[in-house]
Amino acid sequence: MNLTIDQGNSSTKIGFFDNGELISTYKLKFLNKKALGELISLHQPQRGILSTVSMDPEPALLDWLRGDLKSFILFDHQTPLPFTNHYKTPQTLGKDRLAALAGAQSIYPDTPLLVIDAGTAITFDILVNNEYLGGNISPGMNMRFKALHQQTSRLPLVAPHEVPFWGQSTNSAIAAGVQNGLLMEVTGYIEKIKHAHPNAKIIITGGDAYFFVRNLKSIIFVHSNLVLLGLNRLIDCNV
Amino acid sequence: MNLTIDQGNSSTKIGFFDNGELISTYKLKFLNKKALGELISLHQPQRGILSTVSMDPEPALLDWLRGDLKSFILFDHQTPLPFTNHYKTPQTLGKDRLAALAGAQSIYPDTPLLVIDAGTAITFDILVNNEYLGGNISPGMNMRFKALHQQTSRLPLVAPHEVPFWGQSTNSAIAAGVQNGLLMEVTGYIEKIKHAHPNAKIIITGGDAYFFVRNLKSIIFVHSNLVLLGLNRLIDCNV
Repeated sequence: MNLTIDQGNSSTKIGFFDNGELISTYKLKFLNKKALGELISLHQPQRGILSTVSMDPEPALLDWLRGDLKSFILFDHQTPLPFTNHYKTPQTLGKDRLAALAGAQSIYPDTPLLVIDAGTAITFDILVNNEYLGGNISPGMNMRFKALHQQTSRLPLVAPHEVPFWGQSTNSAIAAGVQNGLLMEVTGYIEKIKHAHPNAKIIITGGDAYFFVRNLKSIIFVHSNLVLLGLNRLIDCNV
Repeated sequence: MNLTIDQGNSSTKIGFFDNGELISTYKLKFLNKKALGELISLHQPQRGILSTVSMDPEPALLDWLRGDLKSFILFDHQTPLPFTNHYKTPQTLGKDRLAALAGAQSIYPDTPLLVIDAGTAITFDILVNNEYLGGNISPGMNMRFKALHQQTSRLPLVAPHEVPFWGQSTNSAIAAGVQNGLLMEVTGYIEKIKHAHPNAKIIITGGDAYFFVRNLKSIIFVHSNLVLLGLNRLIDCNV
């Protein structure tokens, strides 16, 4: 049994894998020893990996994981990957992005991939011929709604909702602006990769993945647990 | 001589018009009586208009403008416009958006228009057959950079800079994500309006207007002082 921990900006996702199969997932608002201890008692994993894009986990938590598990990996820029990484600043490259790529590659090997992680930020990463060529970071949907409210004097905080293409009230103008703006942005990425690699597959994960699947015309594949899947693959690569 | 005041989220722009011609513009970080008084002494305007999307101006400032000028308009939802307004919440509709439309309409009458104001927020508004049909609001370029930094644990605050399409470092991933995301979003709007109205003109204003002109393939027209121009037109409409 493997334990995979994906500490993101908004929450921490935890997955347990048995022989390569994801058998349980959990979501914690904050990563803490008590909750994690209970899950470890329940599932009895032997091996584990932790990826964070948030604050560094407490050293005590890491020491405890290292002591409690037969093997434990803190995913960092020195962890071996199943593809070549051409990123110029591997130290600061979001580990969740690499894990999502590893996950996508395990599902669609030998295919050019655009991996979109639609979370707090949206990341776009491309993997071609087992080489990670780079990627982009853009504000996520909720981040955009929050920013319009926080960084202006009068715009309200709007929640996502179904809107026509053009807004006709302040609320619908914001929802249409944020949501349709995102759809046009993602469509632009899909056209770009399809132009360069007509056989490319588009894989999407993250909290807003289904928003894009519902509203985009292109064929895109949703995998909710892509980062956890990739983290599990990294355990296998590193044994 | 007419005085036009456009109080935005980041600064206040002031323009003086002589017989319909913009002869001087000024930018203030904060709208204040002292600076405004000096400009009024210098230019001796008879009529004035103030539009704000920021905090309401102090009543004392408004009273003073009303007393000092022969006529003064505080642009609100009851101010007559040179087009029909179909917006459902005219009270909360950004006055700068209406002013920009009025300005664009004065330059390109009888043409379907997409007016883009690329400021703190980016607004997209359409005017067809002298009818304002609605529009959208999306985060502006600097807002996106700030949001990525403020709403995540580890992403740095990046300044706009020239980047290839795909980032290969954290800084270039953010710059490429924000900048190319915006370009794809705006391209989407242009394609949308050109599809519905092939003869539509795209007019762009606001602090980031030149970024789009430099980087977009479509023909778009920049008018730096579109809001001031529109405000001046509203004075004429309301005399």
